[in-house]
Amino acid sequence: MSVSPPILHGGRIDLARAHFPQAPEPWIDLSTGVSPYPYPFPPLAPEVFTRLPDVAALAELERIAAIAYRAGPQAQVVAGAGTQAFIQSLPRIRPARRVAVLGLTYEEHAAAWRAAGAEVARVETLEEIAAAEVGVVVNPNNPDGRLEPAARLAETARAMAASGGLLIVDEAFADFLPAEASLAPRAGEESLVLLRSFGKAYGLPGVRLGFALCGAGLAERLRAILGPWSVSGPALAIGAAALADAPWLAGRGLVLAQDAARLDGLLAIAGFEIIGGTSLFRLVRHAAADRWFAHLARCGILTRRFGERPDRLRFGLPAAPAAWERLARALESGRNGL
Amino acid sequence: MSVSPPILHGGRIDLARAHFPQAPEPWIDLSTGVSPYPYPFPPLAPEVFTRLPDVAALAELERIAAIAYRAGPQAQVVAGAGTQAFIQSLPRIRPARRVAVLGLTYEEHAAAWRAAGAEVARVETLEEIAAAEVGVVVNPNNPDGRLEPAARLAETARAMAASGGLLIVDEAFADFLPAEASLAPRAGEESLVLLRSFGKAYGLPGVRLGFALCGAGLAERLRAILGPWSVSGPALAIGAAALADAPWLAGRGLVLAQDAARLDGLLAIAGFEIIGGTSLFRLVRHAAADRWFAHLARCGILTRRFGERPDRLRFGLPAAPAAWERLARALESGRNGL
Repeated sequence: MSVSPPILHGGRIDLARAHFPQAPEPWIDLSTGVSPYPYPFPPLAPEVFTRLPDVAALAELERIAAIAYRAGPQAQVVAGAGTQAFIQSLPRIRPARRVAVLGLTYEEHAAAWRAAGAEVARVETLEEIAAAEVGVVVNPNNPDGRLEPAARLAETARAMAASGGLLIVDEAFADFLPAEASLAPRAGEESLVLLRSFGKAYGLPGVRLGFALCGAGLAERLRAILGPWSVSGPALAIGAAALADAPWLAGRGLVLAQDAARLDGLLAIAGFEIIGGTSLFRLVRHAAADRWFAHLARCGILTRRFGERPDRLRFGLPAAPAAWERLARALESGRNGL
Repeated sequence: MSVSPPILHGGRIDLARAHFPQAPEPWIDLSTGVSPYPYPFPPLAPEVFTRLPDVAALAELERIAAIAYRAGPQAQVVAGAGTQAFIQSLPRIRPARRVAVLGLTYEEHAAAWRAAGAEVARVETLEEIAAAEVGVVVNPNNPDGRLEPAARLAETARAMAASGGLLIVDEAFADFLPAEASLAPRAGEESLVLLRSFGKAYGLPGVRLGFALCGAGLAERLRAILGPWSVSGPALAIGAAALADAPWLAGRGLVLAQDAARLDGLLAIAGFEIIGGTSLFRLVRHAAADRWFAHLARCGILTRRFGERPDRLRFGLPAAPAAWERLARALESGRNGL
């Protein structure tokens, strides 16, 4: 296994603070795609901490997740400590020499495959994905929100099954889409792994929880490589409560859709071109994106840059009225001269 | 990677309840080596859950752990989601064909190496460990408490360095021993990895936290295989508070030593031969150990059996006075006729 330099992710308020020490506190972190509305989970019982994570509680969480995600009857649902645990594990339980990743997307997939010795190509079509040994599609995509129809992805997985390939579909940002957008009902075939993130939609990424929906063979190997007790007691309790609460998620979806539209409005007035996104983030283009990034940072607002596409910025959603006001003021002052 | 049947661990109250449905509730779980005195951590800030685990907080936790464990100046301290995360990872970052494990011990080490394709031999001497490609020593040992002097283990690691070998010392139960019993001050050489468990001594195994103390090369590869955010927000916060609180640990050590002596007394009166153990569990021998196990289970008290040694039982420590009383009564009624 080779060791690669770490990827710079959103959420690094510590670095932003060091680079922009004059920025007003508290920082507003719009650099991630995490919902600003955390699930209001009930108080945690002491046993959540004082006992080894319970085997039965893990099975119950996976049962609840299967219902919440509408997993197909053939699908196995495997819980792990965040989607990242699966991204790290898949190259080791299903080695491949050539991997194709669809478009500019979340970088950890390619990094994990490269670390395991695979050659990773960025491709632009599902046909190229279908021709690969292992194909990765983030759907909807981060950062641009591109959405492939579930039927086309299912077709791609079927084509790959014929050649012994594997399609990995990362639905980290699918929670607020119509159910039809998800491949979950079709999960269960050995040529398909679906990844679902808990922390983003439920606003609780510190909990570390994610799921793989896949066939029985891959599920057994994933469980073996994760080992016992890979999901913490708090994650089991919080995940089970949140995933069983469909009305809460639906309610947040409505609010987030309004928030995203409001953000689009502010960004458009400031002169940004809205390229895409999801209910949890918006991707914009501006010729002076780098100056906008610095201006916003001086206002204590952290956005997400993309080294490879210096004309783009990704904005997460503010939550508190004060954060919206600070963002609106910062966008207005930037418009009047960066 | 091959898939092995799961190991049956302590803590399975769910299975015990199913097998002994008439047992009085609540069950008293003496089947693990977890302290019955959980660290009284302060309330967790919302950000512990609502933000991605902070890179700076992880570094700070590792710094605190280095002090708490008295790690040598050359040692790197790597935090993971429980010792198990390292047990799962080591065979993948440092493959070996032949692995030696000292004595009857915690089974997950051998299982992880076998799953990675290694041949695992149980050996009885440190000389045999030194001759192996990879050697595993649990120190003090679980379940019998056997303790190898740190100087002899350091010698073993040095001998293995000469042949490119690796010594893994699992100090999961070393927290209540004198500091001199730990190899931590000598950690940092590339031929030695020291594992430390957080959950057992601090009574918080649900948190999922553990540490590897090792040289820079192994540390880099461990961090790469664990990936970002492998330690949850609650684990970062609770671990940092607990590991900085040396007086609390020292105080618990005194209480646990008294508790262990009290338990020895009860077990001896009941006719058990005390073989060994640590402050967190006692290993005993009895010709009728299997009948004792069933008798105690009917009393709602779960102990740990060992398939390979049917004449042994391991007892963890009760905490509450009511639990001590129920145990004393169950031992007395068993003595009067199993």
